[in-house]
Amino acid sequence: MSIDECLVPKEDRKWLQLAEGIDIQVLFSSNETGRWTVLIRGQKGASFARHKHYGAGEYYVVKGRMDYRMGSAVEGTYGYEPLGVVHEETTFTEYTELYFSNFGPVLFLDDDDNVISILDNYLLESLQNPEVPRG
Amino acid sequence: MSIDECLVPKEDRKWLQLAEGIDIQVLFSSNETGRWTVLIRGQKGASFARHKHYGAGEYYVVKGRMDYRMGSAVEGTYGYEPLGVVHEETTFTEYTELYFSNFGPVLFLDDDDNVISILDNYLLESLQNPEVPRG
Amino acid sequence: MSIDECLVPKEDRKWLQLAEGIDIQVLFSSNETGRWTVLIRGQKGASFARHKHYGAGEYYVVKGRMDYRMGSAVEGTYGYEPLGVVHEETTFTEYTELYFSNFGPVLFLDDDDNVISILDNYLLESLQNPEVPRG
Amino acid sequence: MSIDECLVPKEDRKWLQLAEGIDIQVLFSSNETGRWTVLIRGQKGASFARHKHYGAGEYYVVKGRMDYRMGSAVEGTYGYEPLGVVHEETTFTEYTELYFSNFGPVLFLDDDDNVISILDNYLLESLQNPEVPRG
Repeated sequence: MSIDECLVPKEDRKWLQLAEGIDIQVLFSSNETGRWTVLIRGQKGASFARHKHYGAGEYYVVKGRMDYRMGSAVEGTYGYEPLGVVHEETTFTEYTELYFSNFGPVLFLDDDDNVISILDNYLLESLQNPEVPRG
Repeated sequence: MSIDECLVPKEDRKWLQLAEGIDIQVLFSSNETGRWTVLIRGQKGASFARHKHYGAGEYYVVKGRMDYRMGSAVEGTYGYEPLGVVHEETTFTEYTELYFSNFGPVLFLDDDDNVISILDNYLLESLQNPEVPRG
Repeated sequence: MSIDECLVPKEDRKWLQLAEGIDIQVLFSSNETGRWTVLIRGQKGASFARHKHYGAGEYYVVKGRMDYRMGSAVEGTYGYEPLGVVHEETTFTEYTELYFSNFGPVLFLDDDDNVISILDNYLLESLQNPEVPRG
Repeated sequence: MSIDECLVPKEDRKWLQLAEGIDIQVLFSSNETGRWTVLIRGQKGASFARHKHYGAGEYYVVKGRMDYRMGSAVEGTYGYEPLGVVHEETTFTEYTELYFSNFGPVLFLDDDDNVISILDNYLLESLQNPEVPRG
């Protein structure tokens, strides 16, 4: 993904499925730093499994409602998730749109802390370019 | 400003005047990296003067419309502003709310490229704590 | 670890054992970004196991010689290791001192890519403060 | 400058003059983040003028001796210079080699804090490619 100056209207972006009931638009992804920014769309009732932030993240709720360890984040809420936090589960209790930027990988974990999957800039790239094999 | 985990509803944040017709809410500001994130509220017709990004920035338009070198950014638009770009002028042609994160200082310049003022994490801190002298 | 201005002579730093034949001095470690800087001392014949860089790294060889995928790095050599590279093995073929900074975690992997251990800012902190339980 | 994996022996690098008695080798320079890493060679008696760090920096003294606000940094010394510090003057009191990485621009200032010159990734690029006009 280029890091050239850009202005990207929402109608020029496409939704990619990340998980059941959860789609994303990739807004930024850097192979140099591993930072990535996405718009997340969660259907009512969809949720992210237990995960650990290997890199701080921050979000802004554009619309809807998301419940997690810190409480309920509704429209207009800002949140900061420091390096190293573990979130047991994050559930969209209404249809939600969330602007989210993360400074590294997010690791999804099972109950014994085994790594199930990794959400990082390489995954985002492979979602955008399904024909390119992952490095 | 702490970098602890946080969830900040909009009613818990206060607006601080940055310029004529332009207010901000400080969402994040790091003294380690100089990165800062704000919500900007621009009244119709307000504008930012000529400035240079010493640090890349990115934004998401929550509502309204902002006109600048790259075109018109309306609700839902994402934009990336690389390190080193100069923007002649940025005008809010409607009442606008803009989520914005920048990875370093923004320098406001006159027509001869002299530095008039600097928007950085130190300025944001002094706006939040007016009694503390700037370092 | 503080991020205050500092000047740390070598006699004020202590060596901590990281692995058989490999010691480190922790020079910098950030809980905000996960970036860390160390001086590594490798005895002749010591080696790092297979690992993946989840965060770019860079090094400068102060003395000695280190052999890895890219060749032999001798005194005065600079190297850059981008986000995502995997190094099969890195061996110190002489007594070596290496200045190294990494922008995130390094994951040590077995031959099936299972994560064996993680070298990150949290590990460095626990090495410096053995009495503090890891977060 | 590429950010590909690399191993660069000292004999493959060239010295570029930065100031009277001060040369550098550019080891890394990113147009995305503005971070840059150099090896600095200062002749006995050479000095950097008053400057402010707009971006944290860190150094390791490979050989020699450098005197500045924090004291005398001799061979093997590590130093961290946080975002925002101002250094009145930095003098090499012996022939010195210094590995230095900075996370943004360094601004050289006169006694009234006017900006005289800027040392950043763009300057480093123009030193390496004199024929390319600065952006």
